[in-house]
Amino acid sequence: MSTENFAEFVALVRGSRPLVHCITNYVTVNDCANALLAVGGAPVMADDVREAARIASISNAVVLNIGTLNRRTIRSMFVAGKRAMRLGIPAVLDPVGAGASGLRTDTALRLAGKIPFAVIRGNVSEIKTLHGGNGNTRGVDAADDGAPSGSPEAIASTAALARSLSRGTGAIVVVTGAIDIISDGTRSFAVRNGHPAMARITGSGCMLSAIVGAFVGAAKQAGRAENLTDAAVAAVASMGIAGERAATDLDTLASLGLPSGTGSFRARIIDRLALMDEETFSREARIERLA
Amino acid sequence: MSTENFAEFVALVRGSRPLVHCITNYVTVNDCANALLAVGGAPVMADDVREAARIASISNAVVLNIGTLNRRTIRSMFVAGKRAMRLGIPAVLDPVGAGASGLRTDTALRLAGKIPFAVIRGNVSEIKTLHGGNGNTRGVDAADDGAPSGSPEAIASTAALARSLSRGTGAIVVVTGAIDIISDGTRSFAVRNGHPAMARITGSGCMLSAIVGAFVGAAKQAGRAENLTDAAVAAVASMGIAGERAATDLDTLASLGLPSGTGSFRARIIDRLALMDEETFSREARIERLA
Amino acid sequence: MSTENFAEFVALVRGSRPLVHCITNYVTVNDCANALLAVGGAPVMADDVREAARIASISNAVVLNIGTLNRRTIRSMFVAGKRAMRLGIPAVLDPVGAGASGLRTDTALRLAGKIPFAVIRGNVSEIKTLHGGNGNTRGVDAADDGAPSGSPEAIASTAALARSLSRGTGAIVVVTGAIDIISDGTRSFAVRNGHPAMARITGSGCMLSAIVGAFVGAAKQAGRAENLTDAAVAAVASMGIAGERAATDLDTLASLGLPSGTGSFRARIIDRLALMDEETFSREARIERLA
Repeated sequence: MSTENFAEFVALVRGSRPLVHCITNYVTVNDCANALLAVGGAPVMADDVREAARIASISNAVVLNIGTLNRRTIRSMFVAGKRAMRLGIPAVLDPVGAGASGLRTDTALRLAGKIPFAVIRGNVSEIKTLHGGNGNTRGVDAADDGAPSGSPEAIASTAALARSLSRGTGAIVVVTGAIDIISDGTRSFAVRNGHPAMARITGSGCMLSAIVGAFVGAAKQAGRAENLTDAAVAAVASMGIAGERAATDLDTLASLGLPSGTGSFRARIIDRLALMDEETFSREARIERLA
Repeated sequence: MSTENFAEFVALVRGSRPLVHCITNYVTVNDCANALLAVGGAPVMADDVREAARIASISNAVVLNIGTLNRRTIRSMFVAGKRAMRLGIPAVLDPVGAGASGLRTDTALRLAGKIPFAVIRGNVSEIKTLHGGNGNTRGVDAADDGAPSGSPEAIASTAALARSLSRGTGAIVVVTGAIDIISDGTRSFAVRNGHPAMARITGSGCMLSAIVGAFVGAAKQAGRAENLTDAAVAAVASMGIAGERAATDLDTLASLGLPSGTGSFRARIIDRLALMDEETFSREARIERLA
Repeated sequence: MSTENFAEFVALVRGSRPLVHCITNYVTVNDCANALLAVGGAPVMADDVREAARIASISNAVVLNIGTLNRRTIRSMFVAGKRAMRLGIPAVLDPVGAGASGLRTDTALRLAGKIPFAVIRGNVSEIKTLHGGNGNTRGVDAADDGAPSGSPEAIASTAALARSLSRGTGAIVVVTGAIDIISDGTRSFAVRNGHPAMARITGSGCMLSAIVGAFVGAAKQAGRAENLTDAAVAAVASMGIAGERAATDLDTLASLGLPSGTGSFRARIIDRLALMDEETFSREARIERLA
């Protein structure tokens, strides 16, 4: 399908510099901040309960990531999320590791129950856990799905899951994997960008959740509240394209005598997010509207 | 002006390996540690109140950065700062995001009120907030200053601000921006190094505050307490030169078929700090004594 | 000596993808996660006391690193360590900075006293502190040992220390330095891999402790509980080889017009861990059985 209506969000983020308030894990927080800056947003990380509401109120989006949750930061997540809700600021939930422990599952479910998230992004295990099924999460990683990854059956099944969770929560649901699925309950999309190496670094998912915040925040700020799904799709495709191009960069490095792995890949993904423009996006994005 | 008397601090840090105790945010803490090691210092990050005084007491400098402050770490900052004060160990304040929330503004003002910092480093918004004005901080980013950035008017106005805060607090004040201003209340300097790309990664400011700690710590340790301002200027110029050279490296990368952005820039800044020597510094530093 | 029986652990980790539960410091946590992924493991960072036991119970190894310890995470370390003990899951202790503060020394000693660690890894100061001597730790860095680093006397003295601590605790003891020493109380090894640049980045030691967890976790999972020492030696040599090859990569970068320092070195170490295979390991490892 034409990718132009998605590509414009790449420029919109750069033009409006959305401030994104993240309460996120300390493993990938630096990558999230640099990814936000790379796409043209501005990060603010603030997790003390005494400033969570205030920082949320001056931001264009709030991203809540439970990767290294604890009692203190969970409380701040509720405060920031509720303030965002009250002010109409889009909030994003990344339920990292939901299914791996009762604490994660309960916290993710409670957050999703109390806060009308604009977007929920997770891997298939995490999304299944939120949906009430058994996600069979192994650590913070995606569990095997049964159907061969990327097969039409797997896509249809993941899209049905996303659609159902979206209808249940009102959130746009993004399920990332070999093929990424986005659904707002009415419209569903498959994004066929990305590269397997993205699963071999920490932070691909967290960075995506952060930049989804920037994209939907910029769309909302621009008065395009009805286009948040397109904005989320654009964020997902941007991340995937950056991963593909970063993988190509590793080939270039190898040809220069520098065989490379995940250390360089991580830096090159952020490079490629920083270099993303509408032209690159329009040419490279592989977005499919699902029936 | 001649840069040789500043360049010697580059060698002094490498020769004396100052231990720098940082209580800092979890977003850029890894960059701060690696920047400290790159210039020849040694980092120690310790934020539990039961060891804050002890670790401060064995360090050559203490750096307090409120980027992700919380009740627990704020308390440790006071303990570490007071111990440093009692032992004559120079302390540096980085009031990240002062002005963006009451918690940040109050904490920064309370810290500055209780601890005789050797150096306070922030962007113009943060420094204005500390000065009692309205910094109009947007998230943790610098707000627009009115006067065109880098114009003689803007420099004069920022220098007046730095001088005034320095006289009020007794600290050397470093205001970073397109042009960096340093004042100790008597002497003021402008440093015309640096590169716009530094604002597109997280951590440029935090890394600078950390290495300012290393530079003033090494100067103090060497019995040069009267030269802390020169040491701070040398740290500021080192960071700016590293940014410039890292930006040039991106051109080299592009010529090799690797168009690069902020991911590579971040690594190259640390590379260029690690490669800094007196000769490079003397050749590249653009330091101006202000009237 | 022949390195083939060690090399097989490189493949074993890749083949079994051990889940490694880390309660670790926020300075190098991202490096630890990426190092684990690079060698073929899977990281899960979880430090809330309400999930520490659960996450430990689904993991193949638990790594406890006191680099930025605090009251909350210390409690979780005991909970995770005890659960690991009860389930026969190998646990690794990294006593970062033991000797630098009473809090660190006491916590390291209490952990070592309560939990039968499979492996304890530290620099010579930290290991001396655990052994009851005075490690003379300076910050979180290794103190000078007296004997010239790498001399036969220094190796013999460090091996005696490791052997003694191993006999006292039942843990395999890894002492890293210019030459790395591993002892299980009966057998002792010296590993002559590594590069001085590894001491100029933060995280070399933490990353090693994390991947030691992956190696011993994979060995245990494969029913090779009697080979944990060989697995630990293989992890140590892997890290050293990665450091050597990363240093060579800096020469390649310089020849391309990109003189490099610690920023690139850090990324290249992870690259080289990701590229490690049995063939490279067998060719490059320099492992010596000590008398």
